[in-house]
Amino acid sequence: MELGMIGLGRMGAAMVRRLLRTGHRCVVTDVRREVVEELHGEGAVGAFSLEDLVRQLKAPRAVWLMLPAAVVDGALEQLVPLLEAGDTLIDGGNSYYHDDLRRAARLRERGLHYVDVGVSGGVWGMERGYCLMIGGEREPVRRLEPVFTALAPGAQAAPRTPGRDGPPTPAEQGWLHCGPNGAGHFVKMVHNGIEYGLMAAYAEGFNILRHADVGMHRHATDAETAPLRNPEDYQYAFDLPEVAELWRRGSVIGSWLLDLTAHALRGNPELSEFSGHVSDSGEGRWTQAAAIDEGVPAPVLGSALNQRFRSRGQGDFADKLLSAMRFEFGGHLEKKGGG
Amino acid sequence: MELGMIGLGRMGAAMVRRLLRTGHRCVVTDVRREVVEELHGEGAVGAFSLEDLVRQLKAPRAVWLMLPAAVVDGALEQLVPLLEAGDTLIDGGNSYYHDDLRRAARLRERGLHYVDVGVSGGVWGMERGYCLMIGGEREPVRRLEPVFTALAPGAQAAPRTPGRDGPPTPAEQGWLHCGPNGAGHFVKMVHNGIEYGLMAAYAEGFNILRHADVGMHRHATDAETAPLRNPEDYQYAFDLPEVAELWRRGSVIGSWLLDLTAHALRGNPELSEFSGHVSDSGEGRWTQAAAIDEGVPAPVLGSALNQRFRSRGQGDFADKLLSAMRFEFGGHLEKKGGG
Amino acid sequence: MELGMIGLGRMGAAMVRRLLRTGHRCVVTDVRREVVEELHGEGAVGAFSLEDLVRQLKAPRAVWLMLPAAVVDGALEQLVPLLEAGDTLIDGGNSYYHDDLRRAARLRERGLHYVDVGVSGGVWGMERGYCLMIGGEREPVRRLEPVFTALAPGAQAAPRTPGRDGPPTPAEQGWLHCGPNGAGHFVKMVHNGIEYGLMAAYAEGFNILRHADVGMHRHATDAETAPLRNPEDYQYAFDLPEVAELWRRGSVIGSWLLDLTAHALRGNPELSEFSGHVSDSGEGRWTQAAAIDEGVPAPVLGSALNQRFRSRGQGDFADKLLSAMRFEFGGHLEKKGGG
Amino acid sequence: MELGMIGLGRMGAAMVRRLLRTGHRCVVTDVRREVVEELHGEGAVGAFSLEDLVRQLKAPRAVWLMLPAAVVDGALEQLVPLLEAGDTLIDGGNSYYHDDLRRAARLRERGLHYVDVGVSGGVWGMERGYCLMIGGEREPVRRLEPVFTALAPGAQAAPRTPGRDGPPTPAEQGWLHCGPNGAGHFVKMVHNGIEYGLMAAYAEGFNILRHADVGMHRHATDAETAPLRNPEDYQYAFDLPEVAELWRRGSVIGSWLLDLTAHALRGNPELSEFSGHVSDSGEGRWTQAAAIDEGVPAPVLGSALNQRFRSRGQGDFADKLLSAMRFEFGGHLEKKGGG
Repeated sequence: MELGMIGLGRMGAAMVRRLLRTGHRCVVTDVRREVVEELHGEGAVGAFSLEDLVRQLKAPRAVWLMLPAAVVDGALEQLVPLLEAGDTLIDGGNSYYHDDLRRAARLRERGLHYVDVGVSGGVWGMERGYCLMIGGEREPVRRLEPVFTALAPGAQAAPRTPGRDGPPTPAEQGWLHCGPNGAGHFVKMVHNGIEYGLMAAYAEGFNILRHADVGMHRHATDAETAPLRNPEDYQYAFDLPEVAELWRRGSVIGSWLLDLTAHALRGNPELSEFSGHVSDSGEGRWTQAAAIDEGVPAPVLGSALNQRFRSRGQGDFADKLLSAMRFEFGGHLEKKGGG
Repeated sequence: MELGMIGLGRMGAAMVRRLLRTGHRCVVTDVRREVVEELHGEGAVGAFSLEDLVRQLKAPRAVWLMLPAAVVDGALEQLVPLLEAGDTLIDGGNSYYHDDLRRAARLRERGLHYVDVGVSGGVWGMERGYCLMIGGEREPVRRLEPVFTALAPGAQAAPRTPGRDGPPTPAEQGWLHCGPNGAGHFVKMVHNGIEYGLMAAYAEGFNILRHADVGMHRHATDAETAPLRNPEDYQYAFDLPEVAELWRRGSVIGSWLLDLTAHALRGNPELSEFSGHVSDSGEGRWTQAAAIDEGVPAPVLGSALNQRFRSRGQGDFADKLLSAMRFEFGGHLEKKGGG
Repeated sequence: MELGMIGLGRMGAAMVRRLLRTGHRCVVTDVRREVVEELHGEGAVGAFSLEDLVRQLKAPRAVWLMLPAAVVDGALEQLVPLLEAGDTLIDGGNSYYHDDLRRAARLRERGLHYVDVGVSGGVWGMERGYCLMIGGEREPVRRLEPVFTALAPGAQAAPRTPGRDGPPTPAEQGWLHCGPNGAGHFVKMVHNGIEYGLMAAYAEGFNILRHADVGMHRHATDAETAPLRNPEDYQYAFDLPEVAELWRRGSVIGSWLLDLTAHALRGNPELSEFSGHVSDSGEGRWTQAAAIDEGVPAPVLGSALNQRFRSRGQGDFADKLLSAMRFEFGGHLEKKGGG
Repeated sequence: MELGMIGLGRMGAAMVRRLLRTGHRCVVTDVRREVVEELHGEGAVGAFSLEDLVRQLKAPRAVWLMLPAAVVDGALEQLVPLLEAGDTLIDGGNSYYHDDLRRAARLRERGLHYVDVGVSGGVWGMERGYCLMIGGEREPVRRLEPVFTALAPGAQAAPRTPGRDGPPTPAEQGWLHCGPNGAGHFVKMVHNGIEYGLMAAYAEGFNILRHADVGMHRHATDAETAPLRNPEDYQYAFDLPEVAELWRRGSVIGSWLLDLTAHALRGNPELSEFSGHVSDSGEGRWTQAAAIDEGVPAPVLGSALNQRFRSRGQGDFADKLLSAMRFEFGGHLEKKGGG
């Protein structure tokens, strides 16, 4: 079928390529003229303005936005006047599902459909296919099925769950109509919340392995630092790349994130090229907000998020206050330039 | 080669079966006579006492213990007098690596070798193969290679990590000599620590999805309970089995644990047959203890462990103390039989 | 001076009593006629409707609402038409500061002032005085100083901080104009967030003391439960009421919450009359939301909140999912009715 | 009565001074000759070796060690041969209670008594008195009552708990015989575990207040960083020293730690002289270890400990691994020298 794509960044461009491969007609645009031209060279129809893009699509149109969450509203403002009743707008970025609800309501007033799609797969999606979590009305979602099918990995991407039979459901192919508007980004939000937790679990585990040699080093003895009681128990110098590789086979903790970890550690076991200042793109925060609104505990996901904040120095003042209190009651000096 | 196996529970029996398939000679025993006979019927050599087992193995012997951690020391006490210098004892259970260090030292005095093996794979291991994390001296480990190779899943169990070439390393086949004694169970301990974290991440995420319908329900309005400010944002009734299935394909959070989750949810989306009193077999605790000794943060793994303790009611007194304080300062009544 | 008070619950009635003692004229109302009459009997002017209350106050009026957060907007809707430009509305309840911002803007359009006051002190406030955290415009806050001074504990309530001199600041008397609208409830919100953290710290500590006798009890030995390695280290039967009492003198952890804990434990060391289902009135949640918006880590406060959610059974499904996964990979049965 | 004191650091010297005031005879020693002389000048009997100290005490002797935990065993080794049956050794430092159990058993073989005393009070103890948590046999503890009474703050240090009557118990005076050997340091250990939790709760709360101005600053807009959705809600520039002062009066969260916080913030609201690398002297770790052994959840105390580890850079490798994973799946660059 025919799809307009606005936003040809890492994700948008790769998705267009995957769609082109399966014969879909893609009309594409981006603020960077050169990427439009590049995709034009690969078979897409290039458009150099929103007007141009809309003009080259036949009604009822399907226009997919693949933009940073912060600029989606601006893009919609420009785009909506160009569209006509019956057209469908798809937001495939990392929008907060609250925004989906608001946008869908406003577009509905103009006869436009809105579909929110959470997309997972990262830079590997072009080859592996994308996992698509979809929210919106039944009819426009149904019309987009060929696009979803082309983008999704397909049923063969994972062994069938024992007990399932009959033709594979959409979820078994890697896409799912999760519910009304917002449902797609809600599920994607929780997906990323889980992702943070999984990542942190591996990171903490490997950090423990890495410091298993702490008994080999000499440590200061003073009243303020706990001496290691049993240095003889921490004499291990583990080969982290090999451990990561090992766990990929037969273990309970095998996963795609572990596959990637094995690759990263193999390249540089020290990971010395990374700053360790870890970004968060919103979903981890929103997952916590949802858990809080729902009143359900999510301590693991919350810890993972907090560690990202800490990695960026956002806990420094709290640490200083701890030092200050220790100085107040115990005269412990944790001054700058000291230990 | 030839291996003695003591302990024919869920894990031990399955490992024997996998070894028999690849032509190894297994002499097996267990306190339950019927399981010995069962495995005898499948090709193993049955032994009805430790003496019997030792007698049927040629020196230098390799005897694998697959027993609950709490009874290993008792078994060793009986077994050691029966062995002779050069024999090797393998502990494949969930022992604490501190015990490995102690045992290895004592066995060494008698000329015996000790090899600790952390085994992951669960009830699926017989088919999938077992991930083996091994600690001990180089020589006895080397001698056991045929056994490790037979038990491990083999290189084809996961796609090769890009950038690796040459013949697959042992880790790529699913077994690894991680270091000196204790190293195997240390790595297994951290493996299980990570496992707890991963499991909790999924569990919390699905719990958030499950409660995304909280806005559909009416709630009490009083000064002590926070009203849900935005019920319109929590109107989703997600199909959890389909979401689990969806995430198995193309998403960043695909894993074997997710495969199992999809299977479990498909069987009963309410999971109503489970008590939710979650056991912990020690490694999660020991992982925390190691992190603390090393002085490294492990908040996600710690949270996961704490949730298991809570699931078993071990936090009840703390909760009551919170209720008591609230009553003291605010007159809030959270009495039994009330809300 | 003269103050109208709407809402004569636990907090509102006590505040009126404290104001009456210092000679302020209070016009009071409540939906429950009997409490109006009761306070009338103690010197307040009773009003049996909002109209009645407004009529009995001289412009520019000061009307204090002491209501559950969920009904404040409704009360304002009725009240605002009765007021005239220059009047001031004070919300002393547990409102979310976002609501303050919204309300203040709308009242400003009608020439009304809005002051948000976070009040701490609980049922003890009538005697001890209330800690008042205040947000709003400078002028109406200034006019209310006599009320704040009467409600606050006064400078003598705590020893002066070394290094401070001159006349005590308002903060040293127990009230503070924290900033523009919302600032009062923001500071109160964080105050309560901290409160949750402090309470949980004590609760966890006493729970650890309480279980220090775990080595005296016999435990099951199986592969799924970690045996206690060192029962000889857990042979203590602590007298919790005496420990709480002890820590009140000379220790670093002395606090008012500990005073209350000592009282509660003295009454019933088992706390058996409490359900342990711990409410949360919103501020703990909002504190987390603020930390997340700001991107600052707050793991201790977050843990404390999560434990409250758990205490109310909101983590049960997550626990069941853990049980389900353990069954899937390990065949571990954590079924209902079992162990 | 008569007491020998070994170790005249910050704590030991101040305790001697407090004992001298109440007329106790103190024989004191330290490796630093000058502090012995200084206390000699204040009325203590100076001793310049352990032999000298023992010689100047009449049997049955009471010798108090106030030393870093790591050197106590060494001191005992030298001291024990000098003592005679019936003498009592008191360890008032931060020993792990496991060590108490071991030491008490060994000293008992030689007819010596061992008393473990957890001491709280910090540099303020000389004036305020010390909170004393005591473990050991009944008889030697009874003999030391005059010392405990002199060191403890006394009953007047806190208002009496309502409902208590009769003569004040020892706990009401600030000392308590908590149980057999190890009980004193066990209770002190949990005390410090709680202390970490309380400190972190305040630190996190003040950090949230401090960042309440985040909406005043401009932030980058890209796909990887969550934009602040509601900058208008974060326009507060709070006066932290005044807030700390405010909460000291009438609020639920008043405490001695808050008193100290108010003092620290008043001196320098930015706390810029502190490094924020927060030490931990062992008890926080051991509290976690105890919670884990007991199988009770302690997530708040655990979080507080983890933050200290993080403050010292011990989580850096885990952070880098998160960056590495993000690069692997999303091409997100969090390289050194970048953002």
